[in-house]
Amino acid sequence: MSRAAQLAAVPVDREARASEAHHDALRLWLRLLTCTMLIEGEIRARLRERFAITLPRFDLMAQLERNPQGLRMSDLSRRLMVTGGNVTGLTDQLVAEGLVERQPVPTDRRAFTVRLTRAGKRAFDRMAAEHEAWIVELLGGLSESERDRLHALLGRLKTSVRTNARTKEA
Amino acid sequence: MSRAAQLAAVPVDREARASEAHHDALRLWLRLLTCTMLIEGEIRARLRERFAITLPRFDLMAQLERNPQGLRMSDLSRRLMVTGGNVTGLTDQLVAEGLVERQPVPTDRRAFTVRLTRAGKRAFDRMAAEHEAWIVELLGGLSESERDRLHALLGRLKTSVRTNARTKEA
Repeated sequence: MSRAAQLAAVPVDREARASEAHHDALRLWLRLLTCTMLIEGEIRARLRERFAITLPRFDLMAQLERNPQGLRMSDLSRRLMVTGGNVTGLTDQLVAEGLVERQPVPTDRRAFTVRLTRAGKRAFDRMAAEHEAWIVELLGGLSESERDRLHALLGRLKTSVRTNARTKEA
Repeated sequence: MSRAAQLAAVPVDREARASEAHHDALRLWLRLLTCTMLIEGEIRARLRERFAITLPRFDLMAQLERNPQGLRMSDLSRRLMVTGGNVTGLTDQLVAEGLVERQPVPTDRRAFTVRLTRAGKRAFDRMAAEHEAWIVELLGGLSESERDRLHALLGRLKTSVRTNARTKEA
């Protein structure tokens, strides 16, 4: 290549590299999003088929199962990353079905927490066992070592996002 | 350890191992979900702040930008993994704002495709450039080698999910 051609090539090359780096991060994010949506779509379909339950209901019950002392509605909204209105509607349905109950907060007359009833816990445990088996099945193509490495790299990713995010939530 | 203790320990131990393997896959899935929700939440907040646009609108425009020949509503729904009603509502709004247009399909009198208008393409390109820079920033804590490894492992995960999924979508 002549000097002139080399000089002319430099800025183009740098641009190409920069745009390639951008492209890499974007490709990585789109693949991450695809994986999540594929798994979520499959879980959603199986929950509906097997238990006639929607994913938001299952997620709400999962949060309550992890917090047996109960959660305030605002905590529940934040953890589920959905708006308060949706959580209220879902909770009302689950209360009507006897799977969830509201409890007054002794120190705050206007507040209450929600938690699973015994029937709700039983129903959730049954679903959670199958749900876990589905995840094991869907991820079954990865070796233990691959799962470990993926878990570690996603840990690095989580730290990177939390460090660079502006919003409190992240 | 006595024979009796060893025998008694075997089933417990096997169960513990099995449940640990299950637990690993579940932990991996929950971490994957967390990463996706953190990035999505941050992108959602920035799109709203910077361009006063919702994520579903941005995603719809992104699909149309990738398919400049236009998409039928059913294709658009499938690609966005949302229901037809939502896509119709979003499309109506974008048509009203002059960012998207409907085109009749010459070979099928009842069908039409939607595509970006020139104004829509210009508006999307401006947002997409910033969106890409945000992703680069959020993923900036990972080295190029980490990004490459993560991309490869997520490729393995995608294959595993597609292989083991029952639904057509996955």
